[in-house]
Amino acid sequence: MAQTAFDEITGGVTAPQGFTAAGVVAGIKYDRKDVALVYSEREASAAGVFTTNIVKAAPVLLTMQHIKGGKARAVVANSGNANACVGPRGMEDARTMAAETAGLLGLPPGQVLVASTGVIGQPLPMDRVLPGIRRAAAELSREGGGDAALAIMTTDTVAKEAAVTVSLGGVNVTIGGMAKGSGMIHPNMATMLCFITTDAAIEPAWLQKALAAAVERTFNMITVDGDTSTNDMVLVLANGAAGNPVIDSENADYAAFAGALEALCRKLAVAIAADGEGATRLLEVRVLGASTERDARLVARAVAASSLVKAAVFGKDANWGRVICAAGYSGASFNPDKVDIYVGDVQVAEKGGGLPFSEEEATRVLSGDRVVFTIDLHDGDGDATAWGCDLTYDYVRINGSYRT
Amino acid sequence: MAQTAFDEITGGVTAPQGFTAAGVVAGIKYDRKDVALVYSEREASAAGVFTTNIVKAAPVLLTMQHIKGGKARAVVANSGNANACVGPRGMEDARTMAAETAGLLGLPPGQVLVASTGVIGQPLPMDRVLPGIRRAAAELSREGGGDAALAIMTTDTVAKEAAVTVSLGGVNVTIGGMAKGSGMIHPNMATMLCFITTDAAIEPAWLQKALAAAVERTFNMITVDGDTSTNDMVLVLANGAAGNPVIDSENADYAAFAGALEALCRKLAVAIAADGEGATRLLEVRVLGASTERDARLVARAVAASSLVKAAVFGKDANWGRVICAAGYSGASFNPDKVDIYVGDVQVAEKGGGLPFSEEEATRVLSGDRVVFTIDLHDGDGDATAWGCDLTYDYVRINGSYRT
Repeated sequence: MAQTAFDEITGGVTAPQGFTAAGVVAGIKYDRKDVALVYSEREASAAGVFTTNIVKAAPVLLTMQHIKGGKARAVVANSGNANACVGPRGMEDARTMAAETAGLLGLPPGQVLVASTGVIGQPLPMDRVLPGIRRAAAELSREGGGDAALAIMTTDTVAKEAAVTVSLGGVNVTIGGMAKGSGMIHPNMATMLCFITTDAAIEPAWLQKALAAAVERTFNMITVDGDTSTNDMVLVLANGAAGNPVIDSENADYAAFAGALEALCRKLAVAIAADGEGATRLLEVRVLGASTERDARLVARAVAASSLVKAAVFGKDANWGRVICAAGYSGASFNPDKVDIYVGDVQVAEKGGGLPFSEEEATRVLSGDRVVFTIDLHDGDGDATAWGCDLTYDYVRINGSYRT
Repeated sequence: MAQTAFDEITGGVTAPQGFTAAGVVAGIKYDRKDVALVYSEREASAAGVFTTNIVKAAPVLLTMQHIKGGKARAVVANSGNANACVGPRGMEDARTMAAETAGLLGLPPGQVLVASTGVIGQPLPMDRVLPGIRRAAAELSREGGGDAALAIMTTDTVAKEAAVTVSLGGVNVTIGGMAKGSGMIHPNMATMLCFITTDAAIEPAWLQKALAAAVERTFNMITVDGDTSTNDMVLVLANGAAGNPVIDSENADYAAFAGALEALCRKLAVAIAADGEGATRLLEVRVLGASTERDARLVARAVAASSLVKAAVFGKDANWGRVICAAGYSGASFNPDKVDIYVGDVQVAEKGGGLPFSEEEATRVLSGDRVVFTIDLHDGDGDATAWGCDLTYDYVRINGSYRT
């Protein structure tokens, strides 16, 4: 990715001009916020990336339909219930959520995108969801981004918001976003949701291209437990309120916008990995020198996803044998006899064999909030980074406890 | 697989005629047996299946060379050290193990197969290994199968042996085997080893074909943590001592032999899954009605490998949403709206949606030593079964503890 000059700012989905949001307590999950609404005051280009799981929740299927036209004005989301695997009722309920939101905001239902996260296999309590949507519509405000970020959380321990500004053709545009990570209120499947807003003017096709590229290097490079949810989605709305020259080709503005979007996605993705269920530290796996970027990604993801590597990080164990083993079964092609491995700044293996290293030094670098493994394959110039977290007793506790 | 009439008997690798074995304490891992030797009194057809990890331990590479001729007489194995990722010394040490064994037994070194399991990245202590091999050679006996099975254990909690008899052309032949599962003495990577002996007479090509087919349905259908080791291997020696008509085509005797071999492999594979690190119960995932056997295997393996499913089994949680989710990302093709799911004999989902079920009943079936999920895809007649274990606090403890 080309380097882009952008600045991080505070805020989330309401940082860009022309967006309002709200997050309210609808009662789906006891007394925490559970319905979020994000609204663009003007029509926006829309793009999305969705779970590859063939078992897709109803709101995923509906939003995939609605986004086809490339335009949208609102995102309505609930936490506490995934609206997945509930039969034909699932699509009816997702449509009703879109219709209710559209009616309140004076939009065609096709311009409302719908998302859900939470327990699977239980019908949505629409008698709570619909009043929640009505309250959220009434509370939409320029200050509502934080509440919306709270309303999409499940077992997340912190809300995840980020915003950046970048200059396009001399005009400052803002990109904001919020995300939720892997968790469940009843112990059920993890779900990743991310909603991004921007006041940049960009045609839908280029917005989709920039989003897909950013997701490939960010959200697709994080792992908590290897389980791909039925409900994952990343959406972006670009309403053009900043007044920059419309991006309608792969020009310099496109590159700057795409770079800033990727930076925003990376920040949210890393926040999700760091807040993985039960996690005590972030695991970052940097792969250098792969023969292709694809091979670099395969290795980085396999190492970050390895239960044995994750348990070793929990135990502060510089267990590089597990790292090279995971690289070996990743599907990537490389020569094991050329591999160098570092834990933090401590080299632990050279040319595929172990080096003597100070266990004290290794324990030091393994005790931080962020543990970095660097794997140099010396086989080309393909690079990639993946993020995960350690495997802890709390992961087992959270996901092994009874549902009731 | 065609059904085969076979009988289970007691014993392991020395149950077939013409094999002796020993297991001794060489001092590689404190005071437990750690060098195993299996010897065929006559030349035997040999076949093997090896790890697909591109990072292969030296003994794997050497044994792959030695087995090419289709003949072997002995298997020498050590636990406590994987002889992996130690540079050129690894192959030298593996060759020395073969040469020492060959010298003691009066064999060409190419007829000795070598295996190692244990910590990665540390050179083999040959000053202990070689005296161990000498002692093992001196102690070879018809009663030594049990000691050999003990000597290949790492964090296994029980030794794994099995034997079956089957009639081939009116002659009773015996197949015996021993295996070790996923574990490590220092916390390092899991390794699966299995050595099978038989007094059946069978040409190497047919032995290889029968072994590959059996492994595909048994050892390749178990999972403990999704990490494919650098050292995995399954070997079989067939010495013909039973005097059956030599199997040299895909005739009725081949089918009977292959069926009995698969049954033996299944018994050892299930024993490995049940003894997975930290496991409290065996997880069996039966998939019915897939459009192909390959799709059935993909679904069964993905469900058995899902951390979320495994944690739910630990927590006795009938969390079928995680089951259908894992099926959905398995790579298999099916229609989510046709899927029925059972936990034990309790149906929990029908046509992709949840059914009301008694949580008491579900807890009952989830409390046994073996938890069976049955997934009927109603999409064809492809069937498969996979085995795994629950994900427990002890898995994290075993793999997260410091190496020292």
